[in-house]
Amino acid sequence: MSGSPDKSQTNQVVRAPRGTEDLFGEKMARQQMIENAAREVFDVFGYKEIRTPVFEDIALFVRGIGATTDIVEKEMYTLAQGDETTFALRPEGTASVMRAYVEHNLFKSKKFQKFYYLGPIFRHERPQAGRMRQFDQIGVEVIGTYDPLADVETILLAAEIFRKIELGGFTIKLNSFGCPTCRAAYRTALREALRGVEAKLCANCKSRIDRNVFRVLDCKEAHCKELTADAPCIRDHLDDECREHFEKVKDGLEANGLAYTLDNRLVRGLDYYTKTIYEIAHPALGARDAICGGGRYDGLVEEVGGPPTGGVGFAIGVVPTMLALEKGGEGDGGKAAGPTLFVIAIGGEDRPFAFSLMTKVRREGISADTDFEGKNWKKVMRAANRDNAKYIVVIGPDERETGRFKLKEMSTGMETEADEAGLIQHLKNITQ
Amino acid sequence: MSGSPDKSQTNQVVRAPRGTEDLFGEKMARQQMIENAAREVFDVFGYKEIRTPVFEDIALFVRGIGATTDIVEKEMYTLAQGDETTFALRPEGTASVMRAYVEHNLFKSKKFQKFYYLGPIFRHERPQAGRMRQFDQIGVEVIGTYDPLADVETILLAAEIFRKIELGGFTIKLNSFGCPTCRAAYRTALREALRGVEAKLCANCKSRIDRNVFRVLDCKEAHCKELTADAPCIRDHLDDECREHFEKVKDGLEANGLAYTLDNRLVRGLDYYTKTIYEIAHPALGARDAICGGGRYDGLVEEVGGPPTGGVGFAIGVVPTMLALEKGGEGDGGKAAGPTLFVIAIGGEDRPFAFSLMTKVRREGISADTDFEGKNWKKVMRAANRDNAKYIVVIGPDERETGRFKLKEMSTGMETEADEAGLIQHLKNITQ
Repeated sequence: MSGSPDKSQTNQVVRAPRGTEDLFGEKMARQQMIENAAREVFDVFGYKEIRTPVFEDIALFVRGIGATTDIVEKEMYTLAQGDETTFALRPEGTASVMRAYVEHNLFKSKKFQKFYYLGPIFRHERPQAGRMRQFDQIGVEVIGTYDPLADVETILLAAEIFRKIELGGFTIKLNSFGCPTCRAAYRTALREALRGVEAKLCANCKSRIDRNVFRVLDCKEAHCKELTADAPCIRDHLDDECREHFEKVKDGLEANGLAYTLDNRLVRGLDYYTKTIYEIAHPALGARDAICGGGRYDGLVEEVGGPPTGGVGFAIGVVPTMLALEKGGEGDGGKAAGPTLFVIAIGGEDRPFAFSLMTKVRREGISADTDFEGKNWKKVMRAANRDNAKYIVVIGPDERETGRFKLKEMSTGMETEADEAGLIQHLKNITQ
Repeated sequence: MSGSPDKSQTNQVVRAPRGTEDLFGEKMARQQMIENAAREVFDVFGYKEIRTPVFEDIALFVRGIGATTDIVEKEMYTLAQGDETTFALRPEGTASVMRAYVEHNLFKSKKFQKFYYLGPIFRHERPQAGRMRQFDQIGVEVIGTYDPLADVETILLAAEIFRKIELGGFTIKLNSFGCPTCRAAYRTALREALRGVEAKLCANCKSRIDRNVFRVLDCKEAHCKELTADAPCIRDHLDDECREHFEKVKDGLEANGLAYTLDNRLVRGLDYYTKTIYEIAHPALGARDAICGGGRYDGLVEEVGGPPTGGVGFAIGVVPTMLALEKGGEGDGGKAAGPTLFVIAIGGEDRPFAFSLMTKVRREGISADTDFEGKNWKKVMRAANRDNAKYIVVIGPDERETGRFKLKEMSTGMETEADEAGLIQHLKNITQ
């Protein structure tokens, strides 16, 4: 082969990059089940898909996420291409959707939008259980409204997705992050309160007091949690508008039968949130228990160059959701389904006939398969059984000559004899 | 907002990277239609999804695609991360699937695999109509078989996807690329023949005679085509095994009713192809008319570190397929569907009630929506009509008090009066 390297190099196995994984088989089937459920719920709630590029101008993330966040400071994958701009693989999904909203002037043509997205997100963190460097998120963004019922709708939507995949036992944690004005007052109060315990906090928390003080409340270290147990609560620092908004969100959740808990420690790692913030958590996951995080971000469209515009959204982490399903779910997680018909040729001379019969069945939209490995036909029959084929038909010289086939139902062993048209009709009756 | 830059910087609009695009609205709906059709056909044909990371060790592409290909020499996006290896965004989908097959030892546990994938591919080329730097491909890989009927199956599969999306008028171009042995003989013969016209060929072709001579046949320049019209044909240089394989592929296509044309000029830009190669083309696209390219790659698994293993696959380009659909398709391209029910509140005090009614309808799996922009209710009614809502219900003080609603069918203007349970039952009857 032209340009191929020598064999000593060739025989080394190349591996997937650290912190990434290949999805196939049962795990892929489980993820498909989650994605299909989400798409169905999005349809019922009137959300439309949007897909933005996998990489963006790095300035978007600096402005949209915040220059002092861990994500922007440490965790972005940047591209080496020598273009006029520097690009990075997206480290979250919201900023890109806002960029698209502004770039395509949707604030002029159709201000109110309900978007959803599914796709990969990239963060160059230390990989560990349930935390990958490339991972999938399922998210929504409602843009063009300040209405607290929009916040409520997104929470109902996320809960409906979890209900649909039969993930029980999740809890909804609710807080308000205020607006920039009330947050400034709270920042001062929190910093002052934390100075008293600063010396005893972990190194990370110490550095966060000045850099990004709210994240101290988010620390997973038990002794930090204890030391900050009596820290001031942001909800005591809300102005009238933010407080009223929060009351309406709580009323909406109650009126629509969704239980929640107020969580003083709930903050978000991204700068752009305002007012309502929430997390959906699953107890099966231990300390890092979030399967969904979201909230309102009324300043974000303006931040990326558009007019002042309200917005609210969430992102579901597919990996933690799948972990929660495995550990605490009720669903069967999507078993691999076999073909409706497996066509088995006895000898090589029977194969073209068998293949054409299979093709005719497939043209009716009925799943059908055959062997491509040249295995002995009795081995093929065992493989068809293992692969959960519902029916088999064996093709030998007799079947080719007479045009009559024995259709065997694998679960009962019952055989039906029919010609080609009858066989297809029988399979159609069964699958419809 | 903490860490936000000053306003002069903020008001600049960040744009999507050159050569990438945002998908939403009608274009997104069309692509979803194509993807859903493909997934249905994959199911019928017994192909299972695989998802590999978006970036890979650059060595994989050098070995799998070939060091002297345009893709590897010029078109890869590399990552700047200072890890021990260099990574690149994948410039095609096949090498990654082979890498996954070898890394997870599938050649030991389940040698025969039929995979499909959908997802973004990245090439740093000059953007032009129908050619993006990030673009989606829908592909399949059949691994673990040397059977010519597997080649036939992949072509039938691609054709079935195009049939399903109602794209008529495509043609199937077929050729053989031989094995490395017959290709070496052909390479020499082709080079010799081209020396005679070398001086008159375009600069690109001239440089390709030594670097990657087969690509000269692929040149889109009219005068190059003319000069190479009588170039030797690879099918006259096939050994017995390759010739017999090709005959069986042709027989299989004929036996299953698929018309094709033999194309002497058909070559592939990737080094790894062997024996059968094919392209599906659409005349509406002009010179660059391929909507699907594929073929057999019996050396590829070995090339990335596995045992000798047969394989065949294709990739459908979503962008050219959508262009062909727009220009020459018969389908309607997926019109945006509206919600089944739009709930309209007359005043602000009617909204919580209207919202809860909507939530109950959604819980039955029926799509429903309401206004979040605080518009006057008459404007909302017009918007609901424009968005193709099938039914509306207006909620005012009377409806809240009596619990009886008028369900209005938008296409006929007919009204049905019912209580909550009756309204939901009526909508269920209609949508099932």
